[in-house]
Amino acid sequence: MPQFIPPLRDIQFVQHELLGIEPKLNTLAHHADVSRDLIDQVVEEAGKFCSEVLAPTNLNGDHEGCAYVGEGVVTTPAGFKEAYEQFCQAGWPSLSCDVKYGGQGLPHALQTAIQEMLNSANLAWTMYPGLTHGAYACLLHYGTPALQDLYLPRLVSGEWTGTMCLTEPHSGTDLGLLRSRAEPNADGSYRITGTKIFISAGEHDMAANIVQLVLARLPDAPEGVRGISLFVVPKFIPDADGALGERNGYQCARIEEKMGIHGNSTCVLDFEGASGWLVGEPNKGLNAMFLMMNAARLGVGLQGLGLMEISYQASVTYARERLQGRALTGPKNPEQSADPIIVHPDIRRMLLTQRAYLEGSRAFLYWIALLIDEEEHTDDDEIRAQCEDLTALLTPVAKAFVTDNAFLGANLALQIHGGSGYIQETGVEQYVRDARIAMIYEGTNGIQALDLIGRKILMDQGAKLRRFGALVTKLVEEEGTNDEMAEFINPLAELGGKVEKLTMEVGMKAFQNQDEAGAASVDYLRIIGHFVMSYFWARMARVALDKQDSGDPFYTAKLATARFYFARLYPETAGLIRTVRAGAKTLMDLEADLF
Amino acid sequence: MPQFIPPLRDIQFVQHELLGIEPKLNTLAHHADVSRDLIDQVVEEAGKFCSEVLAPTNLNGDHEGCAYVGEGVVTTPAGFKEAYEQFCQAGWPSLSCDVKYGGQGLPHALQTAIQEMLNSANLAWTMYPGLTHGAYACLLHYGTPALQDLYLPRLVSGEWTGTMCLTEPHSGTDLGLLRSRAEPNADGSYRITGTKIFISAGEHDMAANIVQLVLARLPDAPEGVRGISLFVVPKFIPDADGALGERNGYQCARIEEKMGIHGNSTCVLDFEGASGWLVGEPNKGLNAMFLMMNAARLGVGLQGLGLMEISYQASVTYARERLQGRALTGPKNPEQSADPIIVHPDIRRMLLTQRAYLEGSRAFLYWIALLIDEEEHTDDDEIRAQCEDLTALLTPVAKAFVTDNAFLGANLALQIHGGSGYIQETGVEQYVRDARIAMIYEGTNGIQALDLIGRKILMDQGAKLRRFGALVTKLVEEEGTNDEMAEFINPLAELGGKVEKLTMEVGMKAFQNQDEAGAASVDYLRIIGHFVMSYFWARMARVALDKQDSGDPFYTAKLATARFYFARLYPETAGLIRTVRAGAKTLMDLEADLF
Repeated sequence: MPQFIPPLRDIQFVQHELLGIEPKLNTLAHHADVSRDLIDQVVEEAGKFCSEVLAPTNLNGDHEGCAYVGEGVVTTPAGFKEAYEQFCQAGWPSLSCDVKYGGQGLPHALQTAIQEMLNSANLAWTMYPGLTHGAYACLLHYGTPALQDLYLPRLVSGEWTGTMCLTEPHSGTDLGLLRSRAEPNADGSYRITGTKIFISAGEHDMAANIVQLVLARLPDAPEGVRGISLFVVPKFIPDADGALGERNGYQCARIEEKMGIHGNSTCVLDFEGASGWLVGEPNKGLNAMFLMMNAARLGVGLQGLGLMEISYQASVTYARERLQGRALTGPKNPEQSADPIIVHPDIRRMLLTQRAYLEGSRAFLYWIALLIDEEEHTDDDEIRAQCEDLTALLTPVAKAFVTDNAFLGANLALQIHGGSGYIQETGVEQYVRDARIAMIYEGTNGIQALDLIGRKILMDQGAKLRRFGALVTKLVEEEGTNDEMAEFINPLAELGGKVEKLTMEVGMKAFQNQDEAGAASVDYLRIIGHFVMSYFWARMARVALDKQDSGDPFYTAKLATARFYFARLYPETAGLIRTVRAGAKTLMDLEADLF
Repeated sequence: MPQFIPPLRDIQFVQHELLGIEPKLNTLAHHADVSRDLIDQVVEEAGKFCSEVLAPTNLNGDHEGCAYVGEGVVTTPAGFKEAYEQFCQAGWPSLSCDVKYGGQGLPHALQTAIQEMLNSANLAWTMYPGLTHGAYACLLHYGTPALQDLYLPRLVSGEWTGTMCLTEPHSGTDLGLLRSRAEPNADGSYRITGTKIFISAGEHDMAANIVQLVLARLPDAPEGVRGISLFVVPKFIPDADGALGERNGYQCARIEEKMGIHGNSTCVLDFEGASGWLVGEPNKGLNAMFLMMNAARLGVGLQGLGLMEISYQASVTYARERLQGRALTGPKNPEQSADPIIVHPDIRRMLLTQRAYLEGSRAFLYWIALLIDEEEHTDDDEIRAQCEDLTALLTPVAKAFVTDNAFLGANLALQIHGGSGYIQETGVEQYVRDARIAMIYEGTNGIQALDLIGRKILMDQGAKLRRFGALVTKLVEEEGTNDEMAEFINPLAELGGKVEKLTMEVGMKAFQNQDEAGAASVDYLRIIGHFVMSYFWARMARVALDKQDSGDPFYTAKLATARFYFARLYPETAGLIRTVRAGAKTLMDLEADLF
């Protein structure tokens, strides 16, 4: 079974050496007192929980899975409930929550590192508190004071868990099709009726109550997405003091058998006149849900990051230990029967591919978390607007590009393991199966690509993209005359120019024909992903160059990985730019009947 | 559950319109009487077996899996044994086998189409007869007449099944490390002792006897791969008439729990002085095993092809039926609540990607099968040498490029299905899990890439590659002045030039440093894969252009897919050429300890 070693040095490198989160956070009144010591201590403590308590539940969690034991009852795998109790007792759920509701008010830039490690240790388990945090954020922004006082403290403590109930059998990506109904009661509550599917953590045995956030239609609501309202539907109806009363009128009909994330229950929930309370305004449920969804999309990116880390760790361990064959250039380990497979260039190509996407993605996602801290707490409207724009622009990239690479990374881990990787007890094939869902849920990666090119780029004629471009330009100008940075800065600048040109081209074509945006979308998102990676790898190289004389081999490895990225992964953009330019014609020409 | 519809029209297109297998086979005395009618009839009949008998066992086969019921006994999933009985009764195992041993002597160019359909219908099941055929081929070439007379008729009829036992816990890719021992008995037989792992079909309940072909070392054998001998070790020791006698001295210790191919038993076999008989010369076991292995590699390519077909069928069905959202250019299905998702450019990109690799791979693999028929039966030494060279060159490409794309195709099928694709009962996630092993077994795809660049290209200074290049040059010369072919021929010719240049570059660098070959290998193989695809798509476009006035929309679709290939998939080579050129330095610079 793979061990999980908390990547503390890597986390600290990004948090402190690359992003300088302590001084940055200290410019915000809300986080003026957050210190590096505190951050490091909390991360280290969380790392212990992840490696010692949570990681050991992962392999069996996959093997045993959740079970539907009848009558609406779902059990989680051995150890899940106990790990969750410890998690709550240590106060982990409350870390970044509002102090008003029992939270610790700590920054996202800290929370995000913990989330990464939780995902490395046990992705399926981490979805339970992850979804709870989403429900918390939604009620914090859209709930009435009464709902907030009742629900938030219990979601913050982890005593109750939360979900989001969107999908119905005929309504997935297209939420406008949903049919669940909400009929008003005299007391201001509603009766919710309908079937929801694919509800992660919809039923389980880990918490006293489950807070379902459910999309449904009011009587006479307009058709489509403008007629959807959001309701809170607790499993047990609490009184005003939070004491649990009667069982609400819905039931888990079954759980799905899935490719992976077996430790998370994926539920079909039948609502039969269940009591619900409106969250936010009538018919504006989608706004509230999108708040939750955007956070969830970044959360899915962090799932990808966590899986990349654990996949990489498993890969390196195996590549060092497995003795098989000899180096092409002659034995490196002559005293033994064979060399470790890490001598082979192609094994190294696979390891470095994992590593470059892993470390680049960590820099990217932690940076977004810091943007969110700034957005929430800055007094400066211009900074807030900048943070909002960058977060909006890059959320689909953080979700899709990172999870695509996480699946790639998990598959490379399996490939490095050879036949052993295909066997369940080795543990790496679970990462492949677990990583696969991240490319689908919270909006498929194709939907992310449409969101990026349509809503985030073409809708404001590239204004948000220019915000990111300005950061790149600044770095290029600062480093452009610096010889030792040329190998990193030149390809970054070159790609920046190409992205600008390509974006204009696609925009002009899409103006004539919307299908051109759809045809370009997925490859375009991947190009933007590389643009982001190039930016962060150039920045990381800068830090490593500054410190390479320290003698710390950490910086040697960082520079080697940066060089690998630009030599071996970045060139993918050459093909992608051509496929984007190929346009929609070859996709749309063939009649549907001829497929 | 996905339906399987035998792709008869597509098979016939490749067999007859593209490759003209009937006239080609008829030039060989051995196949002078094979007619198109016979071929079509046999394929159609096999298609019925695949769709009506075999395909219905696939989903449950995955779900139920094989079971180790103790005492060395392994059971296969419900329906497997009955399907195998029907398969044998109909004579399918004997189709391409030697008439001397009860075979029907029909060509590989026919057998290969049947193998494709069997793989589409149930990959895990098809491995049982597939491995049997490998054992047949090995004994046919290397067995003594006595062994042949005893074993071949029963392998040909399918009464007994076969395996290949290579891997040991410490010896996978590196067969030189294997330790199983063979000690001579006075009667000319041997006592085989050792543990073999990952033995597909090593134990099961589908046949009366199992013929294990086992690699082991004779006493005083040289170390490494030059000291390996091959033995036939039957489960029950037959007398000279084939009547089954005592149980041989080995046992299945357990079966592996795997990511996929659950219907095929992956066995640990403990040999404890089991009786074995030498196949081929002492210490030359690897030659015999490589005969089997090369056929097996092509067989794995066909597994990829079969999975691409069934994945594509499932994808198209879902994309036509699933109503969700509206076309970007306005409703296409206004009378219903939503449009079918096939209206979306990105769904079409995914479908056409599957289709272009599927149809390109079918042309490629059927063509190789025809080369093998020619190689076996031609009287012309030059033709035989040409066929041998092309088959040797392209076997690693057929294995690795096709299975990489099969995994891609299965994943695209899952992505098109969205959340439903992640659920087991939908059936497509099984294709992803089943396809994953094809990139690993019979030599990982990384090993295929080393075989291609090292043994098949650099070892003879590109002579075999020039054989393929000559075919391309011929096509380019024939079509170069033909306007309607320019869009297909120009990129083919361009890539041919680039491959030639790149091969020389890599060769020169590898001459200085072997790691350069390893560093280039995987990306280089993918470029060669595209070179092959470009050649076959140009040839298929030629056929389709000739017939497009027939009014048959089949040719319209073929041309559209050819155009898609060159516009959307071929451009990947632009990035790959750059990464190959990047060389070994960024891979080898980092010390192993710093990973």
